[in-house]
Order: sequence, then C-alpha cells, then structure tokens
Amino acid sequence: MDIFEGIKTRRSIRKFSSEEVSAEAIANILEAGRWAPSGKNNQPWKFMVLAKEKKDALAEFTKYSFLVKGANKLILIFLDKDISYHYQKDLLAIGAAIENMLLCIHSLGLGACWMGEIRNQGSDIIKALGLGENLEFEAALALGKPSLISGQGRRKDLKDLIIDG
Amino acid sequence: MDIFEGIKTRRSIRKFSSEEVSAEAIANILEAGRWAPSGKNNQPWKFMVLAKEKKDALAEFTKYSFLVKGANKLILIFLDKDISYHYQKDLLAIGAAIENMLLCIHSLGLGACWMGEIRNQGSDIIKALGLGENLEFEAALALGKPSLISGQGRRKDLKDLIIDG
Repeated sequence: MDIFEGIKTRRSIRKFSSEEVSAEAIANILEAGRWAPSGKNNQPWKFMVLAKEKKDALAEFTKYSFLVKGANKLILIFLDKDISYHYQKDLLAIGAAIENMLLCIHSLGLGACWMGEIRNQGSDIIKALGLGENLEFEAALALGKPSLISGQGRRKDLKDLIIDG
Repeated sequence: MDIFEGIKTRRSIRKFSSEEVSAEAIANILEAGRWAPSGKNNQPWKFMVLAKEKKDALAEFTKYSFLVKGANKLILIFLDKDISYHYQKDLLAIGAAIENMLLCIHSLGLGACWMGEIRNQGSDIIKALGLGENLEFEAALALGKPSLISGQGRRKDLKDLIIDG
C-alpha cells in the first residue's frame, strides 16, 4: 500500500472478526515500530503482545473493555525510563513508533484502535503484569481483522493548522 | 512508495542540494501530518513553514545551525496548549503527525532531519517568532532534496524490545 494513501485511509477500528492475527503479521508490525526515529536514536520503547486470557485480563482496566475483549491481540507500548534521555522527546518518538505500527497494520488489511483512556490506569496495569518500575505504560493497540469500518476520519482544515511563516 | 518499505528505508538527511521544495510537496507533507490520529481526535498540532531569511534566523537557536541553513525549508511543529486535553497523550499524537510527515517526505524523494536539540530553546524561538504563549515548540524538520544519504539506520534487535507476554 502506498504511504500517502495509507496515511489518509487508515481509521480506528473498533469491531473485529474472530480471525487470528498471524505471528508473521505481528512480527511485521513490531518491525515497523522498531524502525521509528528517536532522539539520539535511543529507541526508548518496549512492546508486549498479549492474546487470549492474558489479553482479556486487562479489560478491567478500561471502560472500553469491549475493545480489549473483541480484539484478537493487544499490543502494549511502554517507555523504558532506564533508556530515556528527555521525557517529552521520548514521548514524541514513541508516538512515531505507534504510528508506524498503525500504518503497517492498515497496510496488512488488519485494523487497530489506539487506546488512550487505558493509559490512565498505567501504574495498575504495570503492577498487574508484574513489570518493573522502569516502565511507563503509554498506549495499547487493540488489533484484529476489521469487521466494521465506521470511522469517518474527520480532520480540521489545513488552514486551521497552519501558522503563517 | 510502499508503507513498509518506506518505514524501513527512511533515514535522517543532513545534507541537501539547493533544489527548491515545491509548494505542492509542502502541501502534501502537511496533509500527511493532518491525518495523524490523536486522543479524542483533538488534533493538537500546529505547523509553520519557513524559508529563506525567516528560516535562517532560527540558526542561532541551535548548535546544528548548518542544518537550518542547509535546508531548503524548515517545518516547525507546535503543541497548541489551548487544544490540549492530556499533555502526554498530545505529545504521542504529535509524534505520530511528525512520523507521517517524515514518511511522506521520504516517499516524495525528499529528505528531512527531525531536529530535537533545538527544542531546548523552544521558549526563545516562540518569542523570536512573536507567537502566542498557547504554543509549545516540539520539533523542527529540516527539509530538502538529499545530496547525501549517510544514516546507517542502526536499530536494536527486536528481541531486545519485546517483553514476553
């Protein structure tokens, strides 16, 4: 899929079929995240892929539990504070890694929803998963084969985003 | 250009020819940024494109002044705090918008360097440009036609990025 087309046609997917997301697809998606740029090339991200019961156990940490349960896989994205060199720049880099993954997911004919509200329960999730305090939970991607593409993709006009130089 | 190929072959570009970046290319790049996802679809970003003297005037705010002067255009990316709903999530979204722009730039046969160090002088840059206090400066993209592609694109092994789920 062409880059520009992919950027413009990607939508948040919130309804998934029961179709399995293959290990090959997961490897491609993580590989796309891996190639994101970062400040000083510090690559401050960590990824975790959950399926089945381990995935469903996270449903209690969000009011969008239907997304967790309905997805075939959940990809969790963390900042590794041990590798961080500048908090804000690291978050920008992690946003770039997430977008790479979302674009790759879309190009594979799969769909995802970037879950944000669940981030508010990040500390509890880290404890529940038994992970180290070096990690900060940033986002979850609910992932699967789309069964419904409903997002309208409304965006502000470009003129409202530009400051005249 | 294919999405996955673009993600893997994009490199930071630090040497540019004197070739002009067209207004059409700029419009495409900003359009790619516009389509990034954001929490609650709040689209908290603002973009500013600088050329010639206005661009060069920013060289004093970074130790990488050669990038500012050598680039044909500079794209500045800001967080609009008036639109912000959650600082960290907004930064993640802006990182996604930046990556969309970088991928679009690469697919157009152009190149860019995501400048991070210049962010440390963000407040001074906002003052120098006469911009409002609602803006937080996040990044500059030095943009032009590549004359040298030198980045090696080293990345950590995927196994070092994955937490077993």
